[in-house]
Amino acid sequence: MVLQGVRALVFDVFGTVVDWRGGVARDAAPFLARHGAADADPAGFADAWRRRYQPAMEAVRSGARPFTRLDVLHRENLEAVLPDFGIDPAGVPPAELEALNLAWHRLDPWPDAVAGLARLRARYVIAPLSNGNIALMIDMAKRAGLPWDAILGAEVARAYKPAPEAYLRTAEVLAMRPEEICLVAAHNDDLAAARRCGLRTAFVPRPTEHGPGQAKDLSPAQDWDVVAEDFGTLAARLGL
Amino acid sequence: MVLQGVRALVFDVFGTVVDWRGGVARDAAPFLARHGAADADPAGFADAWRRRYQPAMEAVRSGARPFTRLDVLHRENLEAVLPDFGIDPAGVPPAELEALNLAWHRLDPWPDAVAGLARLRARYVIAPLSNGNIALMIDMAKRAGLPWDAILGAEVARAYKPAPEAYLRTAEVLAMRPEEICLVAAHNDDLAAARRCGLRTAFVPRPTEHGPGQAKDLSPAQDWDVVAEDFGTLAARLGL
Repeated sequence: MVLQGVRALVFDVFGTVVDWRGGVARDAAPFLARHGAADADPAGFADAWRRRYQPAMEAVRSGARPFTRLDVLHRENLEAVLPDFGIDPAGVPPAELEALNLAWHRLDPWPDAVAGLARLRARYVIAPLSNGNIALMIDMAKRAGLPWDAILGAEVARAYKPAPEAYLRTAEVLAMRPEEICLVAAHNDDLAAARRCGLRTAFVPRPTEHGPGQAKDLSPAQDWDVVAEDFGTLAARLGL
Repeated sequence: MVLQGVRALVFDVFGTVVDWRGGVARDAAPFLARHGAADADPAGFADAWRRRYQPAMEAVRSGARPFTRLDVLHRENLEAVLPDFGIDPAGVPPAELEALNLAWHRLDPWPDAVAGLARLRARYVIAPLSNGNIALMIDMAKRAGLPWDAILGAEVARAYKPAPEAYLRTAEVLAMRPEEICLVAAHNDDLAAARRCGLRTAFVPRPTEHGPGQAKDLSPAQDWDVVAEDFGTLAARLGL
């Protein structure tokens, strides 16, 4: 049986469950227009904001900075990226910056995500194992109807993926052995880190996460335990 | 409007949402019978086990012991209480002790709880703010159908109620001010501690939590923001 002995499925979220690029672009478009950057490409703005994501977390992973939740990093990154689009963040009312920062709380799930999760939930504990913070994940889930059993991830583990603690402390709070947990992700590097910690792995490629020209994560880089094209197919592969 | 400005309802669980005494007694009865204590009162056994709950957490609250999740404290307390019922824990297979320890994961909700939570969830973020650990709360919720938006509480806050950190760190992860959160509890002392931290308060008495002779928490000890006889009435009082 596929994933025999697995009791929990934990999910990468940004890119795997929800379309961060489309959601951020949608909310950035009117902001950019209001602030004199009407010609900027909102998806390019989303990409530029997101490019600062890994370096910001790396400061935490390296120990240079204590654990800081993602909402704070996103806000810092927003203020850092605005000048690249000709906008001085000091000239934008803070409430407006905050509203745009919350775009990450309002991302839409991929079309198969909600129905697939509902099927998977019948047999497994399902939870995000995201670098997003708890409040972000709650807002996103309530808006989109994601039927999580719990909100886990970086803020509960106090560690950002792909640090091993992010996976191992998640296993600890679930009171499960790592091999009883499967990470579902659209990213080969996330799955590789989870596998190194003993978790099982399911790859669900999201070939348009980075837009039409996506070059990475189109196919499995290792023999992951399961490969499925969407959450519905994943549920079917697991006999649900 | 009642609870104006409140965005999240957090719940005490043992006693407020679920009937711990009835559930533990139900699972303890066959165990006691199997181990030569067939004459023991299972509800009295539940009471005796539970009496060790506050002292065990006090060791953590006082700093005498690092944060230790409730499943571990329950297991230690179980082994400590068995001799009072004539049972030597060293003579019981560990798997059987563990199975009984998980009785706390299998507690039934009070009859109004699931339907009431479903109504409250339409407007508020709802989450346990329990001293129970994450895995315990997940198992309980999946079995009983408690529709939490997230699992919060002592293990996320790394502090046991009524320590202020338990309430204040919960507000922090929710990214809300304390006054935007209301604690729902059947216990006046829990509500008093929450109020000292700035949370709003809703008292839902559970007059049979401690059995037919219950003497405490039958009525409000302060002018809590809301008093309601069950979760359905609470939802109605909030216009839901």
